[in-house]
Amino acid sequence: MIETPFKTHGGALDAAIERYGGSRADWLDLSTGINPAPPPVPDLLPDTWSRLPERAAEQRLANAARSAYGAPAKAGIAIAPGTQALISLLPYLFEPRTVAILDPTYSEHGRAFAAAGHTPCSFSHLAAIADAATIVVVVNPNNPDGKRFARRDLLDLADRLARRGGLLVVDEAFTDPEPGLSVAQETGRDGLLVLRSFGKFFGLAGLRLGFALTTPALAASLAARLGSWAVSGPALAIGTAFLEDRALIARVRVALGIQTDTLFGVLARVGLDVVGQTQLFATVHHPFAHALHGALCRRHILTRPFGYAPEWLRFGNPGEAHQALRLERALVESFAETRQARDDPARQSS
Amino acid sequence: MIETPFKTHGGALDAAIERYGGSRADWLDLSTGINPAPPPVPDLLPDTWSRLPERAAEQRLANAARSAYGAPAKAGIAIAPGTQALISLLPYLFEPRTVAILDPTYSEHGRAFAAAGHTPCSFSHLAAIADAATIVVVVNPNNPDGKRFARRDLLDLADRLARRGGLLVVDEAFTDPEPGLSVAQETGRDGLLVLRSFGKFFGLAGLRLGFALTTPALAASLAARLGSWAVSGPALAIGTAFLEDRALIARVRVALGIQTDTLFGVLARVGLDVVGQTQLFATVHHPFAHALHGALCRRHILTRPFGYAPEWLRFGNPGEAHQALRLERALVESFAETRQARDDPARQSS
Repeated sequence: MIETPFKTHGGALDAAIERYGGSRADWLDLSTGINPAPPPVPDLLPDTWSRLPERAAEQRLANAARSAYGAPAKAGIAIAPGTQALISLLPYLFEPRTVAILDPTYSEHGRAFAAAGHTPCSFSHLAAIADAATIVVVVNPNNPDGKRFARRDLLDLADRLARRGGLLVVDEAFTDPEPGLSVAQETGRDGLLVLRSFGKFFGLAGLRLGFALTTPALAASLAARLGSWAVSGPALAIGTAFLEDRALIARVRVALGIQTDTLFGVLARVGLDVVGQTQLFATVHHPFAHALHGALCRRHILTRPFGYAPEWLRFGNPGEAHQALRLERALVESFAETRQARDDPARQSS
Repeated sequence: MIETPFKTHGGALDAAIERYGGSRADWLDLSTGINPAPPPVPDLLPDTWSRLPERAAEQRLANAARSAYGAPAKAGIAIAPGTQALISLLPYLFEPRTVAILDPTYSEHGRAFAAAGHTPCSFSHLAAIADAATIVVVVNPNNPDGKRFARRDLLDLADRLARRGGLLVVDEAFTDPEPGLSVAQETGRDGLLVLRSFGKFFGLAGLRLGFALTTPALAASLAARLGSWAVSGPALAIGTAFLEDRALIARVRVALGIQTDTLFGVLARVGLDVVGQTQLFATVHHPFAHALHGALCRRHILTRPFGYAPEWLRFGNPGEAHQALRLERALVESFAETRQARDDPARQSS
């Protein structure tokens, strides 16, 4: 029983509700790699909503982000309403060319470069990057397979690309829980651009806040495409408050570690093989992953299937113990159901 | 006594504080054309902050905006984190060409087209638009001179441009209080793009929300440049709530009318000539406008001077009666001061 997976990534809950019923409150949405337990949103001053954001507020956030991500003062930084806007705009800063993109990975990188007239080509390990490529995109750790790249390898690649006027883009959307993986501290030099996502780690994806750390010139070009005041007052205020709060960042890391351990425990107890993970999701292999996705949907638990990898299913972290328990029970039931459906195709349902 | 005006537009309060002292609470900021009395921000569900915005929420806001602005269902709509992002991105959708831009007007239009490699040329009335121009930009009513264009003239121009594959961009940032000026109800056909700003009318500039109403194809191109989820959850929620609330919109219109009357009363009583106005600002002529700007700054009232028009000064609406009274007293004092300074240059101070 192979069900058609949802075509969209992220934010697919409404589509699932339309197909499988229930209200939003009924659903456990594990389809994203977003921290399910955000810290409380602080009270905001009325000016945050009413006034055009001041340049000084943007500069304070830029400094907080540079410091939290370990980037040097010389690094340029572009602040955007989410990294997605930076991913969409970056390709337009370059003449069309061959762009090597890690595969599989977050599909928006390839889509964005193709939309801007570039020729994306894929690679699965750094040694296999096409010689013609002067722009290379890596997600580290990678989504959804959790592949990790060594900092030294990435920095060597960035140097080689820099000598040819090229650029290594490292999307560090899932790096916050593992800062040792980051190359942000090397930004500011030619050939390297690092994307950081605020919303995933802090669980505030609706806030829309993301950063590009790179050379001052490239950061300025990205910022110019967006124009002034692209980031909201609430995003500036909350972003600054959270990124300046080292104790909060440490607490969020601890919480994500506990969430990850909990999810791994569930997946191990039901016998699912984890093929890749970060501290914000785990991707499992299962011969009937799409059927499992459908069975979980009927229990109002949303996971993330992959059209290109029909045997993979990605689980975000359950935020609370009772949600992990609900997931474990639903998995046990779903296994029984998918086995039955496989043995007796007439019992298939959606 | 001519003082150097601030170089920035909007959000210049921090620079004024640095130069003239005082805390933010001390200042009356009349340097923008933003409603100073926003309706209360409604309570937001936690999901608004934590979840990636759903496509359904964007569609609901798109429908609310189309309806509030009187645009037909066939109109395409691009939702952005502020109209500035649309102004910045639009020029990149066209091959470099001659672009006719109303002059004087909001300077970002010309800057954005020039940055994208176009050749901006200026015009002061529609009959003077260069024949070579296939893109024309009008702000209606215009900022800062309040010039108004007749709907019929704009639609005729859009039709002529459409026949040559061109585009009329009408920035309706200040049109909400005067919906009869809007050409939004004609959007959806070739040759016309209307920009609408949420934050100015509702006084929520920090929210970052703006719209382009145009053909579906052009709206889709703009949206693709921004990428998915460029607008925050709070902006989607508040934007939808306010634009669906016709009674609220009517109340805001009434409030702006009262603010405008109050400001006009102040300016008339002190003898300042209004050379242009909308219901969100009034621009006056004064032979020593920059000195007046400085004298008001020393009283911690920020207005908007213009480098290209040293005899103009723009006043946003005071939001409350006591602020209007404070402005009136400060103007009376400032007139005396600028007269003294003019008569006795040794008394100049900054």
